Amino acid sequence: MRLGEMTWTEAREAIASRVTAVIPLGSIEEHGPHSPMGDYAIVDEIAARAAELTGDVMAPTIPYGYSEYFRNYPGTITLRESTLDAVLTDTVDCLLRHGFPRIAIMNGHAGNAGIVELVARRFSRTRGLVIPSIAPLGLMQAPQVVARVYGPNAELGHGGEPVGSLWMHLRPHRVRLERAGAWGRRKVFGCPTDGLGAITVEGMRVAVPLDMEDVAPPETGSLSDPGLGTPERGRAMLEYAVDSCARFLRWFRGIDPYLGTGGSLPEQAGRPRA
Amino acid sequence: MRLGEMTWTEAREAIASRVTAVIPLGSIEEHGPHSPMGDYAIVDEIAARAAELTGDVMAPTIPYGYSEYFRNYPGTITLRESTLDAVLTDTVDCLLRHGFPRIAIMNGHAGNAGIVELVARRFSRTRGLVIPSIAPLGLMQAPQVVARVYGPNAELGHGGEPVGSLWMHLRPHRVRLERAGAWGRRKVFGCPTDGLGAITVEGMRVAVPLDMEDVAPPETGSLSDPGLGTPERGRAMLEYAVDSCARFLRWFRGIDPYLGTGGSLPEQAGRPRA
Amino acid sequence: MRLGEMTWTEAREAIASRVTAVIPLGSIEEHGPHSPMGDYAIVDEIAARAAELTGDVMAPTIPYGYSEYFRNYPGTITLRESTLDAVLTDTVDCLLRHGFPRIAIMNGHAGNAGIVELVARRFSRTRGLVIPSIAPLGLMQAPQVVARVYGPNAELGHGGEPVGSLWMHLRPHRVRLERAGAWGRRKVFGCPTDGLGAITVEGMRVAVPLDMEDVAPPETGSLSDPGLGTPERGRAMLEYAVDSCARFLRWFRGIDPYLGTGGSLPEQAGRPRA
Amino acid sequence: MRLGEMTWTEAREAIASRVTAVIPLGSIEEHGPHSPMGDYAIVDEIAARAAELTGDVMAPTIPYGYSEYFRNYPGTITLRESTLDAVLTDTVDCLLRHGFPRIAIMNGHAGNAGIVELVARRFSRTRGLVIPSIAPLGLMQAPQVVARVYGPNAELGHGGEPVGSLWMHLRPHRVRLERAGAWGRRKVFGCPTDGLGAITVEGMRVAVPLDMEDVAPPETGSLSDPGLGTPERGRAMLEYAVDSCARFLRWFRGIDPYLGTGGSLPEQAGRPRA
Amino acid sequence: MRLGEMTWTEAREAIASRVTAVIPLGSIEEHGPHSPMGDYAIVDEIAARAAELTGDVMAPTIPYGYSEYFRNYPGTITLRESTLDAVLTDTVDCLLRHGFPRIAIMNGHAGNAGIVELVARRFSRTRGLVIPSIAPLGLMQAPQVVARVYGPNAELGHGGEPVGSLWMHLRPHRVRLERAGAWGRRKVFGCPTDGLGAITVEGMRVAVPLDMEDVAPPETGSLSDPGLGTPERGRAMLEYAVDSCARFLRWFRGIDPYLGTGGSLPEQAGRPRA
Amino acid sequence: MRLGEMTWTEAREAIASRVTAVIPLGSIEEHGPHSPMGDYAIVDEIAARAAELTGDVMAPTIPYGYSEYFRNYPGTITLRESTLDAVLTDTVDCLLRHGFPRIAIMNGHAGNAGIVELVARRFSRTRGLVIPSIAPLGLMQAPQVVARVYGPNAELGHGGEPVGSLWMHLRPHRVRLERAGAWGRRKVFGCPTDGLGAITVEGMRVAVPLDMEDVAPPETGSLSDPGLGTPERGRAMLEYAVDSCARFLRWFRGIDPYLGTGGSLPEQAGRPRA
Repeated sequence: MRLGEMTWTEAREAIASRVTAVIPLGSIEEHGPHSPMGDYAIVDEIAARAAELTGDVMAPTIPYGYSEYFRNYPGTITLRESTLDAVLTDTVDCLLRHGFPRIAIMNGHAGNAGIVELVARRFSRTRGLVIPSIAPLGLMQAPQVVARVYGPNAELGHGGEPVGSLWMHLRPHRVRLERAGAWGRRKVFGCPTDGLGAITVEGMRVAVPLDMEDVAPPETGSLSDPGLGTPERGRAMLEYAVDSCARFLRWFRGIDPYLGTGGSLPEQAGRPRA
Repeated sequence: MRLGEMTWTEAREAIASRVTAVIPLGSIEEHGPHSPMGDYAIVDEIAARAAELTGDVMAPTIPYGYSEYFRNYPGTITLRESTLDAVLTDTVDCLLRHGFPRIAIMNGHAGNAGIVELVARRFSRTRGLVIPSIAPLGLMQAPQVVARVYGPNAELGHGGEPVGSLWMHLRPHRVRLERAGAWGRRKVFGCPTDGLGAITVEGMRVAVPLDMEDVAPPETGSLSDPGLGTPERGRAMLEYAVDSCARFLRWFRGIDPYLGTGGSLPEQAGRPRA
Repeated sequence: MRLGEMTWTEAREAIASRVTAVIPLGSIEEHGPHSPMGDYAIVDEIAARAAELTGDVMAPTIPYGYSEYFRNYPGTITLRESTLDAVLTDTVDCLLRHGFPRIAIMNGHAGNAGIVELVARRFSRTRGLVIPSIAPLGLMQAPQVVARVYGPNAELGHGGEPVGSLWMHLRPHRVRLERAGAWGRRKVFGCPTDGLGAITVEGMRVAVPLDMEDVAPPETGSLSDPGLGTPERGRAMLEYAVDSCARFLRWFRGIDPYLGTGGSLPEQAGRPRA
Repeated sequence: MRLGEMTWTEAREAIASRVTAVIPLGSIEEHGPHSPMGDYAIVDEIAARAAELTGDVMAPTIPYGYSEYFRNYPGTITLRESTLDAVLTDTVDCLLRHGFPRIAIMNGHAGNAGIVELVARRFSRTRGLVIPSIAPLGLMQAPQVVARVYGPNAELGHGGEPVGSLWMHLRPHRVRLERAGAWGRRKVFGCPTDGLGAITVEGMRVAVPLDMEDVAPPETGSLSDPGLGTPERGRAMLEYAVDSCARFLRWFRGIDPYLGTGGSLPEQAGRPRA
Repeated sequence: MRLGEMTWTEAREAIASRVTAVIPLGSIEEHGPHSPMGDYAIVDEIAARAAELTGDVMAPTIPYGYSEYFRNYPGTITLRESTLDAVLTDTVDCLLRHGFPRIAIMNGHAGNAGIVELVARRFSRTRGLVIPSIAPLGLMQAPQVVARVYGPNAELGHGGEPVGSLWMHLRPHRVRLERAGAWGRRKVFGCPTDGLGAITVEGMRVAVPLDMEDVAPPETGSLSDPGLGTPERGRAMLEYAVDSCARFLRWFRGIDPYLGTGGSLPEQAGRPRA
Repeated sequence: MRLGEMTWTEAREAIASRVTAVIPLGSIEEHGPHSPMGDYAIVDEIAARAAELTGDVMAPTIPYGYSEYFRNYPGTITLRESTLDAVLTDTVDCLLRHGFPRIAIMNGHAGNAGIVELVARRFSRTRGLVIPSIAPLGLMQAPQVVARVYGPNAELGHGGEPVGSLWMHLRPHRVRLERAGAWGRRKVFGCPTDGLGAITVEGMRVAVPLDMEDVAPPETGSLSDPGLGTPERGRAMLEYAVDSCARFLRWFRGIDPYLGTGGSLPEQAGRPRA
């Protein structure tokens, strides 16, 4: 259930019933010339459906993420890393104050992962609490899922699939496939690029900070073929993600998040547990 | 139009057509035992409708605000002041980078106003840009509006009206009026309270930091009578707010936000303009 | 008594006798072309007299405040908000370390109020201590006081009264009434201004960061008529403020600042007190 | 002249006449059981008299300093180093904005010197401006001055002279010589102490953070004999300091603070000037 | 050449000859019960040899890194992320001030990579400068290298190889193979672990902050078999790394680090390069 | 012993045997045109030898220090004060976590002393732990040592002796005496300079931030005669320093660093110990 649609006394009851608080993280950034930018709406949908299935509580989706390398594309809004850290920290602090026994993050944007780890590690150190996070858009890009939904040899990537298909399913009238253009991966300094943070020089990985317009055709920002998108594929991907997240939430209910990892090792102990 | 539902090329076109970027600010906090906490949905609705009327672009609503004095009520999520400052600053920075010629804030939660002013003043100093903000829920509580919608002598206040009515209009099935309980304003140290930041001692205003449970019946958090709520009143209030915001946006189109206030006084000038 | 004129063993005795520590906050900023800028001297005088009457201890007056909107007027010194926060926090920390059982603030400059609230709220959260603050220059501008001292229909305001009269009483030779010039309130964007943070657009309040030279005649910085000033009025205002502050300090002696507000609600409790 | 007693138009005129802005720094801390704590009043007096002699402008004295090692003595108020840095930085920023052509610091408390250097170095780097500082209470403790005023072999030190004499001259009724007690310098770890930051171990200087109660008799905090104090000595010391500061201010008028040191070396130059 | 063994005039000459400044980053952390902790010495050796081959200048190796997840093992010293960021930023700032035309990082510890990226991205934004980084210990673990040096099917990993072999080559008398004990990878919550930041739950990757004692036998901290170590393998690995780094430095000399990536896109441009 | 050459189980044993952890601090900065810049290597050598003599553990030498006033000389790398503070704080935190019973600092660069004091004072306040620091290069410049090694009337100073001699002893082939040039001390504003932070104006000390090129011949950066350098003098100085540091470490073993200074005075006590 959405926390924002609950009254405070309903929230009190939910806490008493020991449900998990789910924090969805989104972003708003270029997804090719044909897809809407607000991918926060996708993770919002996935998290809401999963929480509905498991009876957990979902906090409002944070619509801005860390999208620094997309920032030159009009409409992309990126938080600084320290800002996203602070938003997430404050949110967790409040949920813990109210007594939620466990907290999970559903991260809809890969760029947020580093900050999520930082924040989770800090809560592990300071409270001995494990806050797990799951990335539904990452899960749906596992090879076997892609093969099942798109057939063999399909290549997905930013600015194309699977986000295009997801939008076709969720907001069909907002996708403008006729605007899609060139896609692919460019070289930098004459070397192949590897994600948004490295190039390959004579077979060696060399880390270099890249922007999206460096690695994709700058006039589109598309790494993969938007032509692969269909509403059916979007629906299949979405259902897979909802199902995965629900499975995760059910698993998490069986875990004691205050037990079982080094995070709960008392500060005063100077050596690893034998 | 919602920025999150636009592609980046559509955003580029909107910027070229010189529209205003609207940033709505919400919050999630107790609103009595009967009303949903997520008032961000109200300002989101108001801002979206107003921007639709005027053709401006609306950034995703920030769903968390500064709600410190409500923080003991389960479900309330409050950002630290520095966090909200950072989120708003980052958002404005991105919109300016992309070339939006003017930016306006629609603030759905009174507690955010101090931070909004800080941020606006900073952009005024550093860029000579005026970023105005308007508070639709404040506007609808002007005496003449209240008198028209509620009749004479009605008293509105947090944890009651007008938020209850607005929810009855927007999410009728989520309001649980049967849960409403005691309402009113309590004394602290035996003295009348004045908002959430002062008491009156022998006729003198004494500033004291208060929490909602100090000034309202703690078991409800309601300062005004929830029984005044009706969907019709909610609708009337909402329409008034939408209309006001649209009028504001139209007025703002006629203003040069880089001209006409002291904010644009060059730093090196040491004296006021004669 | 002034803490700065006590020896440390006298301070130890005063603490043992359970007096209040009073922290006066001032500022130095334009007050029209005719009045001295250092209004810290006014609150210093008021606080010292009040503390003398009640036997409380007064810390040295902090002579700089948050006067950002006056900053273009030569001689105005403004601290950043974070700076004033730090100064006040450090001062309170020291007084608490030494064992003062209660602390009160006398704030001589309206612009400081937001920071005072922030700091007070933080001490309320972290120590369960209520630090009240009172604004003597605000109290003396209550309508009934103004009517008694100035007669009916007098309008006071920055850059004119009552500060001019107070200086005529305290430092007659430092007031240069012959320099007073135009006074009044200007429009911005063709709209009436409302304080230093808003304009009224078609009846709606729109928050906008303003500077003093935007809202008053820039060549004077005077919002109200300096011609209303007389030493007698200054004396009456000062005596009213001293008497009010003494009453406040006596009242405060009867309060347990660690009891009675939500500030002392233990962090681990997740719900409001029933 | 005191800036706080000037109107803003007088300040504008003073700036136009190219005078120096003097910032006095004080502190409030234990000075033995017999002397008042507020030594800010001493530097305030010295700076005001010197500025009167030379026609320069004196900003309000900052009454709190960095007095960390005295902090256990009731009544001592110490700013964190970052706080004093911020106060001084903000003050200089404002004075420069208004056009003061040169700024000097009169530092009445040795503990502030490190922060003064940090701030001065920063302005040297960022604006190429030299902000000199002078320590009147240090100057008056030069051997030849001490010999002239106290006779041969006199030893001065914190919690005794010369501050006791200065107070006897400035506020005779506030000195309580009958409270003076033991004085001298203690050992720590069985080793002689060297100031408040070191001990001597087998002839070697070992830096160790000490508090005043470590190095002086804790029940007094006096390092030197309070019995040496007389009002005449206080007067002689004060006059020497005023005269020295005036000489310094006159010398400073002849210097171009933007020329002549490495501070003005442009950032882009990578090598020392040949 | 090592910068620390050059005089400042030699540094000036090296800059004039347009060499690259190399910054090596190390760490000190557990590497199993048998290997020394100071792996900074390994990257120091590699970087020095490579720079000697190419004629570039090597700054002193920073011996501490971000080793947070090893922190419970005695002797591990970890910098906070913000600390390492600051050290690296200051180092780059100084080298740029002196005129080095290009800067490269040799990162000897995988945990530092995230901070290196942050810092590099910041310099890309603020100066348009590309600072590449290369990880010699990563390069030597490429499958084909491992197969060549260790034979087929060898598995390397923290707390075992290749660091053990490298130490056997560099400091044979400091390796205590008799102390090596159990090695391998443990489960957390009954699930397989994936690096130090994730577990696999029902086939799904779930991010969780882990410590080394969670994923390896806590009494050793070894993930791979120390018994694979030989001095010959260490020598082969070291030579491979030196050769790779030298190739990288030669390649870098041919690149204009101020040209060719989005980092140099001027801030004022609001759209990607077409 | 060097911590970096120990395995983690050896570190655990060393901690159990209650040795001291020594943290050496170095710097890299101009030392005249003839001497290498990396003086971190000197303190590294001294600390390693001393720790070897006493059986204590030496952490890796931090090779960068606070050398701000040398920063215009190519090759000088200076950390900001806050950066060095953070590095030292993190290092101490880790050593304390692991259980080292006592920590000492060997500071090889005078410019670091202020930051060392700050950090030491903070640990004294927060943990009641005394962290002493010793400056081997300072100790060797005591008058009696200089007289013994250099003969009467020798004057040492930055950019000349004793660093030149130390390098001749440690890295003879890296000293290029033929590059030495003019040496001496310059005037600023026509006044004698006093260290790097003051000038003497008409007999008065005036604090002014200076750079090395202000006080020494800028084309050399040498304050004292490099011609005094010989390898024998370097050896004598080094041995003196090693012996002094060893004596200090032995003395420190007999001290309880948690007892005996005001640092351990509990926060809640408001008065000095009688």
